[in-house]
Order: sequence, then C-alpha cells, then structure tokens
Amino acid sequence: MSLPLRVGIAGLGTVGAGVLRLLAENAAIITARAGRPIQVTAVSARDRTRDRGISLAGLHWHDNPVALAADSEVDVVVELIGGSEGPSMTLAEAAIAAGKNLVTANKALLAVHGAALAQAAEAAGVTLGFEAAVAGGIPIIKALREGLAGNRILRVAGILNGTCNYILTTMREEKRDFADVLADAQALGYAEADPSFDIDGIDAAHKLAILAALAFGRQVDFSSVHVEGIRRISALDIAFAEELGYRIKLLGIARETPAGAEVRVHPAMVPKTALLAAVDGVYNAVLAEGNFVGSVFLQGRGAGAGPTASAVVADLIDIARGTKIPVWGAALSNAAAVPIAAHHGAYFLRLMVVDQPGVLADVTAILRDHGISLASMLQHGRKPGEAVPIVLVTHETNEAAIGQAIARIAILESVLEEPALIRIEPS
Amino acid sequence: MSLPLRVGIAGLGTVGAGVLRLLAENAAIITARAGRPIQVTAVSARDRTRDRGISLAGLHWHDNPVALAADSEVDVVVELIGGSEGPSMTLAEAAIAAGKNLVTANKALLAVHGAALAQAAEAAGVTLGFEAAVAGGIPIIKALREGLAGNRILRVAGILNGTCNYILTTMREEKRDFADVLADAQALGYAEADPSFDIDGIDAAHKLAILAALAFGRQVDFSSVHVEGIRRISALDIAFAEELGYRIKLLGIARETPAGAEVRVHPAMVPKTALLAAVDGVYNAVLAEGNFVGSVFLQGRGAGAGPTASAVVADLIDIARGTKIPVWGAALSNAAAVPIAAHHGAYFLRLMVVDQPGVLADVTAILRDHGISLASMLQHGRKPGEAVPIVLVTHETNEAAIGQAIARIAILESVLEEPALIRIEPS
Repeated sequence: MSLPLRVGIAGLGTVGAGVLRLLAENAAIITARAGRPIQVTAVSARDRTRDRGISLAGLHWHDNPVALAADSEVDVVVELIGGSEGPSMTLAEAAIAAGKNLVTANKALLAVHGAALAQAAEAAGVTLGFEAAVAGGIPIIKALREGLAGNRILRVAGILNGTCNYILTTMREEKRDFADVLADAQALGYAEADPSFDIDGIDAAHKLAILAALAFGRQVDFSSVHVEGIRRISALDIAFAEELGYRIKLLGIARETPAGAEVRVHPAMVPKTALLAAVDGVYNAVLAEGNFVGSVFLQGRGAGAGPTASAVVADLIDIARGTKIPVWGAALSNAAAVPIAAHHGAYFLRLMVVDQPGVLADVTAILRDHGISLASMLQHGRKPGEAVPIVLVTHETNEAAIGQAIARIAILESVLEEPALIRIEPS
Repeated sequence: MSLPLRVGIAGLGTVGAGVLRLLAENAAIITARAGRPIQVTAVSARDRTRDRGISLAGLHWHDNPVALAADSEVDVVVELIGGSEGPSMTLAEAAIAAGKNLVTANKALLAVHGAALAQAAEAAGVTLGFEAAVAGGIPIIKALREGLAGNRILRVAGILNGTCNYILTTMREEKRDFADVLADAQALGYAEADPSFDIDGIDAAHKLAILAALAFGRQVDFSSVHVEGIRRISALDIAFAEELGYRIKLLGIARETPAGAEVRVHPAMVPKTALLAAVDGVYNAVLAEGNFVGSVFLQGRGAGAGPTASAVVADLIDIARGTKIPVWGAALSNAAAVPIAAHHGAYFLRLMVVDQPGVLADVTAILRDHGISLASMLQHGRKPGEAVPIVLVTHETNEAAIGQAIARIAILESVLEEPALIRIEPS
C-alpha cells in the first residue's frame, strides 16, 4: 500500500461536509480504486464551533484558509470557499505556489482566473482539478477533456443552472408567472435570497466559459460570454412555446461557426423532442457534438452535497492515481468569441397589440423590410380594441436584422408592451 | 514536441478505417491534446488490395496481425479483429508480452478473457484500453472507472445493443411483428445475416459483464450473466406495454442486492417517463446510480465507424498523455453473481385464453397460492369461446414464485399458448 494522499479542505459548508462524509463512508472502495488511502488531514472554515454532523477530531484546524497551503501534511488543497476574488483566489495561488495540487468546485474562480491559474499550476507541475465546477456530479469535464478528446467539438449546449431550470419547469407545469415561482423557490431553498447570480444567467455563464475553453481550446473568457437570464420569461410565452412544439430552457451554448465560436447563455426555445427539452426540475444536462462521435448527452444532478462531493473526489482519485492532464486539455488559443450580433438563427417574437385591423400588416411589412420571413403566426381569440398577444416565428435570420425590426415594431402605436424575443435552438 | 505515439492497427473494416480517418482529419487537435502526434505506422488486414478510401502509403503492412506485436515501430496495438478467441486473443497476448499497450473495441474478448488480459497487462506495465468495447462513442468506461470512482455503484442499467433497440422501436412505432422487422433490419444492414449474436442478447451481455466488473469490482464473468433476447417479444405485448405506461427495452442491468450482484440482460418494461424509455432507434444509453452522485445518464451512438473510432482514439490520447489507471479500476473480487432465480421484482404476464367463465378465477387462484398479488389486469373486448389476451401486472414478488405459478398456469386447459412474461424494471 502506498502512502495516503493527504487532503486539506477549505470551506465546510454543505459540499465540504459532503466531501468529508463521502471519503469516510466510501473509504474502502476509494482506497482500492485510488491505490492508496485518501485522507483528510486539515480543514479550514469560519466557525469552529458549528455542528456539521461529522467528526473533525484529529484534523488540523486553520482559521485562515491560506494556512492550508503551508501545512506540511497536506498534498492537495480542496477549495470550497467560492467567489472569484478574495480568499478563494488567495488560497488557490498560495497552494499552487507551495507546490500543492488544487481541487476546486469554484466556477467563478475558473471562469475569471482559469487561464492564469492553469499556467501557474502547469509551471509548478501540480494538478488543478475542477470537475465539480460544472454540472455537479456529471463527469462532463472528464468527458470533454478526455473521453471525447479525439473529436473536434462542434457544439456544446447545456442546462447548467438548476435554479433556473426548476423555475422554468414549475412555471410550465403550474402555469404560473416568474415572480410567483421565484418567491416559492426562495422559500424552499432552491433559490438564494439574492437570486440574481442564478436567474440572470451569471452562474450558467461561468460554467459555459469553462466548457467553451475545453471544447474549443480557446482562453477561458467570461467577459466575452453573452448573458441573458430568465426574468423576462412569462407564463404566456411558455404556453405559446408548448403550442408551437417547444420548451423554453435557459441554455448555455458554445458553437463553432465559420466566423468563430459563439458563447452565449440565454432562454431558448428547444423542440419538445430534443433531449434537452425533457430535462426538468433541478437536473443539469449537457449535449456535446463531436465531428466523429456525433451527439453525446449527459444528464444528472447539477448541485447538492452528494453530487458535488462525487466530482471533487473523482479529481482526488485522479491525483492519487497519478493522472496528469493539461488543465484545459491543451494549450489555449486567443481566438476571440463571436459577438451575439453575428448570431444567425430563428426567433420567437411575441407582441401585445391592440386588436384592430392593420396591425399585422404593419408588423409584417417591417419584417419584410429587414428580409425576415415567417415560419408561423398565432393569434387566439378576438377582442376588438383590446390587448391581445400575437406570436410570430421567423425562419432563420440574423440578430442584427431582428434587432432593427424589433426596434421599429416596438414603437408602433398599436404595440402596447416591449416585444418578447426568444431565440430558437434547433435541438 | 515529444516523440509520436506509434500505432499499429489490426483489422481495417469500418472501425479500423474510421480510426485512420479520425487520426488524419483531427491530427492537429489530437497532437495539441495528447501533447504529441499519434501516428499510425503499421496495419494488418486480410485483403491488401481492397479500396478502403484511405491511403495506406508508408505504413508497414503485416499479413499476420500477430506481427504487429513484434513491430519495433509500434508502441500501441489497436485490436479491431473481433471475436473472443483466435487471432484477436493471440494478438492481445502477444502485444502485452512484447510490452506494447493494447487498445481494443472487442467486447467478447474482454468479457471472456478480461481478467487474464488485465493481469498480464498490469504485470507488463502496459495499458489495456477498451473504451470502444461498450456503447461506442459514449465515454461510459471512463465515467465508471474515473468520473464516478468516488461512489459505491448501486446499479447500472443500459441499452447496449443498437440492433435490438432499433427492432423494438420499429415494432412499436409501426405496430409490426418481430420477424417482419428483423427481416427489414437485415435488408437495411442494421442486423447481421446471422442475427443471433445481437437479438439473443449475447452482445449486450458481453458489454454488461464489462460494466458490472467496473461497477462492482467483481471479476468479469460472462458465464454468470443471465441472458434473454428479444425473439419472443410480440407486437401485442408492446401495445399492452404502451397502454400500461411502459416501453419494452432490451436492458442490461447490474444491480447490487443484499444477496450480491444481479447481472442480467433481458427484455424489460420500463415506465415511459424513465430516461431509458425515451432512447429510441440505434442509440445506446447507460444509467449509473452512485451512492453519492445519484443517477447519471449518458446517451449516444453505440456503434458505427465515427463513434467507435472516437472511443479508440480517446484511449490512444490517454496513453499518449501517460495516464495509467488499473484496467478494471481496482483489484477485482471473486464475489459470485446472484442467480436470476433470486430476482425480486414486478412482472408483466400475458396469457392467451379461451374467453369463457372461470378462466380468470383459475389463474388468480394459482397466483394467490404462490403469494403473488396483482397490481392491474387488462382484457379488451369479448369473444366468447375464442382466444383473447389477458394481461396481468403483479406487485413485487420473486422469480421462483412467478416461475412456479406460470408452470401451473401454462397447463390450464383454457390457456392456449405459452404465457409471455416480462420483468418490470422500476426506472
């Protein structure tokens, strides 16, 4: 039996406690698979007295997480503090500088500082593991970086935020509006008191920036991700989507186009028959398309103590086994992302208009002026002189054309609210 | 740039040609990811003159595949000959004995000789890669052996044979019978002229034996897999399944039970809402349940040149990167599989009976005698004195009880055909 791999854990919230529990409960299996024991020797957290339901007896306790980097009985630092700046970054840099391997579940840290940290880790000859940073227990980092490594990746599309997916699923199933469902989700603990990180798409964008770097070999670049959240999705649009054969999902999409890589997070209409359309509730899923493998789809729990701990421990076992893979799978290029303005695709457009003759003629004339042709149109019921929704689905056009058309449509006198526009994603 | 990894390929059928094409077409990406070029230096196939649409110029040609093992310009032998005995096994042993890494897509070889080959490979310090042996392009070997390695695996359930899934899907969609759809599948090239390897479940059982070894750390043991194929599935049973909210799928299931591991391939009724129920046509899929990660679901193409080549090349990239994982993820125990006779579960039972008073009373009395209770019963229409189907769905019982009950039911005078029995799998 080889020497144990000694682990120091920074952050003992739900996930940190989950890692401790997993390593204890599955110790025999993990030792057999890793070829040696994986043993927690040190921890750091804010509150030393809190009962976490796990024994910390015999472990070094560090009030300051950075002290883990200097602990001579720590081979791997597991960073579960969170946040792209502050203690997490200080600890990450210190751990690498001290020649220790680093495992993190911190998507923000990776999305913002992933290039610099990878460079430092590779120079120091240590591993930087981040399987837990994207899609919880789904081994998507390993799938992209190793399992599908023979492929040119054409597209990655994922449901990367369980809170948004739960809200959208509940809105659809219960025909309720966003604010109402969000309030419930907050009460149930599925959404944070300040939910903007999730519902404005930032969390999904952090994860997508990581997937795009792995998929396309381009620098992780959170700032170039186009991000829209789900605040403006209405029960009305969800109902129209159903009628048209679509589901509305917050997708993270990284796609190779002739002009470069598109990297975008936004609500999208996906055909009901698509695998991603069937992913409901708090599940996460990723569809990856390779030029030889075709489509590979992975689904699982994207958050929670168990799944996230599973991913952290997978990285620890890799380290214990001596596996060394370049942090981003390969050297990264500086190819810029294509701006959303260059996007081509079909669009769902919903207008609230006064039900009176001539409105549709005005709207379709504007679309014609911008070269946009229609695939379908829906209007239910009649309420002469009152507000009614009209739904238009376009054929493929581009973001610039639809943007200009909408700007003109929005100021028509008969158009009563800001138009709702949702991109359609083929599958 | 490090030295190239030099590859010798035995077998230049669809998959072999696919590997050559992939390595050529994606050479730049693969070199970047592997850290060095992966270069085919030698090949072996039966027919030197056949046009495979790829250039073999500059490659060593060996008429006898075993010669690849002795080729000093080969670091890795890729075995794509197939079959558990004969040239594939001779080559595998020779390659390992010569200190060369071995990559194979050969599920039969692994299922039958996997333990001995792993021992030899580990003693020789070489890698034995077999990602391509199960579920084509889906990186399920890597997921079980590495990505989910922190978990005790509770259950693996998969659709592992595309031919069977295509036939069952077509039977359901077109309401046609087995023999008819099989003939079509053979004409289309989706099924072999001698289809028994696929439709009798042997191919799926080879793959399941491999997954069970990885999941449970028990010796690969093809002979202990319980195997039933799909020949006896009728359009009638598929229609009843639909009505009851189920789909019939040929599943490979490896499950931890208090008595040990069940390892079985058979047609199963799965709820329509289950992820596996939605996997149609030639797709493969695997659901893995871990004690921390929960359920993880992977779907993709299970066969074909592109997906299989993708898996072979993933193994080659692992070797080029220097990754070394125990062949079966850990040392394997000799824990025996639980025989199918010990299975507990619910059952679908379809009888063809004479429509006359008292038949159901006889049948239900027998079920009662064996302690079997019913969840539901279906009989449509009435044809006094003629043959009609009766469907019974049981609550959970065990294989011994249902077997004894059916033996008695089958010899009732009013029961006209051998009863159809299909196990129900919860999800």
